[in-house]
Amino acid sequence: MKSASPILIVGSMAFDDLQLPTITATDVVGGSGTYSAFAASVFAPVRVVAVVGDDFPQGTLESMRARGIDTEGIEHASGRTFRWAGRYDADLVGRTTLDTQLNVFASFQPKIPTSYRSSPLVLLGNIHPALQIDVLNQVERPRLVVADTMNFWIQGEPKILGEMLERVDLLVINDEEARLLSGIHNIRRAADEVRKRGPRSVIIKRGEHGALLFDDDGIFAAPAFPLHEVIDPTGAGDCFAGGLLGYLATVPAVTPLSMRRAMVHATATASYCVEAVGTERVAKLGHAEVKERVAAICKLYEFGAGAM
Amino acid sequence: MKSASPILIVGSMAFDDLQLPTITATDVVGGSGTYSAFAASVFAPVRVVAVVGDDFPQGTLESMRARGIDTEGIEHASGRTFRWAGRYDADLVGRTTLDTQLNVFASFQPKIPTSYRSSPLVLLGNIHPALQIDVLNQVERPRLVVADTMNFWIQGEPKILGEMLERVDLLVINDEEARLLSGIHNIRRAADEVRKRGPRSVIIKRGEHGALLFDDDGIFAAPAFPLHEVIDPTGAGDCFAGGLLGYLATVPAVTPLSMRRAMVHATATASYCVEAVGTERVAKLGHAEVKERVAAICKLYEFGAGAM
Repeated sequence: MKSASPILIVGSMAFDDLQLPTITATDVVGGSGTYSAFAASVFAPVRVVAVVGDDFPQGTLESMRARGIDTEGIEHASGRTFRWAGRYDADLVGRTTLDTQLNVFASFQPKIPTSYRSSPLVLLGNIHPALQIDVLNQVERPRLVVADTMNFWIQGEPKILGEMLERVDLLVINDEEARLLSGIHNIRRAADEVRKRGPRSVIIKRGEHGALLFDDDGIFAAPAFPLHEVIDPTGAGDCFAGGLLGYLATVPAVTPLSMRRAMVHATATASYCVEAVGTERVAKLGHAEVKERVAAICKLYEFGAGAM
Repeated sequence: MKSASPILIVGSMAFDDLQLPTITATDVVGGSGTYSAFAASVFAPVRVVAVVGDDFPQGTLESMRARGIDTEGIEHASGRTFRWAGRYDADLVGRTTLDTQLNVFASFQPKIPTSYRSSPLVLLGNIHPALQIDVLNQVERPRLVVADTMNFWIQGEPKILGEMLERVDLLVINDEEARLLSGIHNIRRAADEVRKRGPRSVIIKRGEHGALLFDDDGIFAAPAFPLHEVIDPTGAGDCFAGGLLGYLATVPAVTPLSMRRAMVHATATASYCVEAVGTERVAKLGHAEVKERVAAICKLYEFGAGAM
């Protein structure tokens, strides 16, 4: 842990109102920045750039600091925090957005504190691609830049998104986003097309089916860990990204092999997230627990490949 | 190959009319028995029990025999062969049945030739569970009994299906069938429930996302091989089952490890099937090709787990 490199995370901090098949929960602390910061903090020091309103709980910020998350870059704006409300289908896969209130997030302009500027690893959460570029303009050339995006920007801001992609090492998106971005349905060819536009590596998340990494070394498949119970899938993708960068912050170099191992650690981290509502589980997640689940995931793969 | 045990396959032989996103193809030779027999014949001698009508092509039967498939158990009935017509969605995942004509299959009563009765491996394709039981009553206790089933029998014949399950070692079904059979949405708990009803092992197929094996050793995840192009997914599940039994026919004992390796060979076999319309590709598939794809699939898993 002590030798891990610091990770800069830019993303949203929010309240979520969640209608889950089992529970309805309101004012749940969420947001891509919050989830991925908690997840990455299992492995490495984290620095967050985000914006919160007057109503954001001090307790959450204190919990973050207690885990080695630097909150200096979290701007406190006058007004209400970003809110999202959604309803999940019975299968916990499909979901419907019921309400989005940008509030203080609407005028968010990431300001990177001086002490954050030399962060060797950067996670650009799903915000306007122009802001993602703006963040990269404020930092020294990091060792690794990872970005997320979404359909809204793929359709609405294709040009600026294209510029952002040229400056990113790894893009982490889901299968529908990959199809929309590339215009290609076949996942393998979609990934090839996205890689031509900038990122050397692409991870395609497929929810309960795991994730695929496409890079110069080929394809790596990380199956999701089949859980006995999933409570709340919100934030799983952000925890995946946080766990991925967290692991990569602990290795001397980002290589195809360390990227594959990072996928397994990311899967383990995300699998804990969905076992409870909101950030409840991931906010308390320890390194030993992640290692335990990594071992369980390794068993999912065991078939003595060398002897085949 | 020479030391492989013979496999008895009971299933359908059919004509399919396929509306694929790229091509419309009529009178395509198909059926679960046909697909799985071709797939299994890559590895081992195969014995087929099925029924065809007057219109079934002699050429297909000759191709089967040329691959070491014993066709003595294929009954020639007077009338037309079973026909299925379906339309695939653009994503090649969803599909709609347009027409089903059972024809000679409606009165199918599997009659196991004497020379087939000591087959050590048995694949009970998706037919009425009473007929699956009837097949088991006609054979000496095999080393391994594998069965497939479908929603139609799960909903319509739950009692007799339950009796069939008690006599099966391995059930190979898809995720929706597992959910319907168990009444449980969560895949891991659904598999646990199905295993309580008889089969010591359950494989849950998830199409383009691969398959999961649940047995006494835990869970094994076999990701599908991401292909550059999928032409026709018809028969992929049957080729998976055929490839699985084919591999198991070549090993001295069915162990958790050999079952996992069989999953990888099954994945490789099925991946070839979907590269062409109908049985076109699998009917010519060679062992060296399967080994080549097994090697490619092994690369999907490589992350030096031992060192983590």
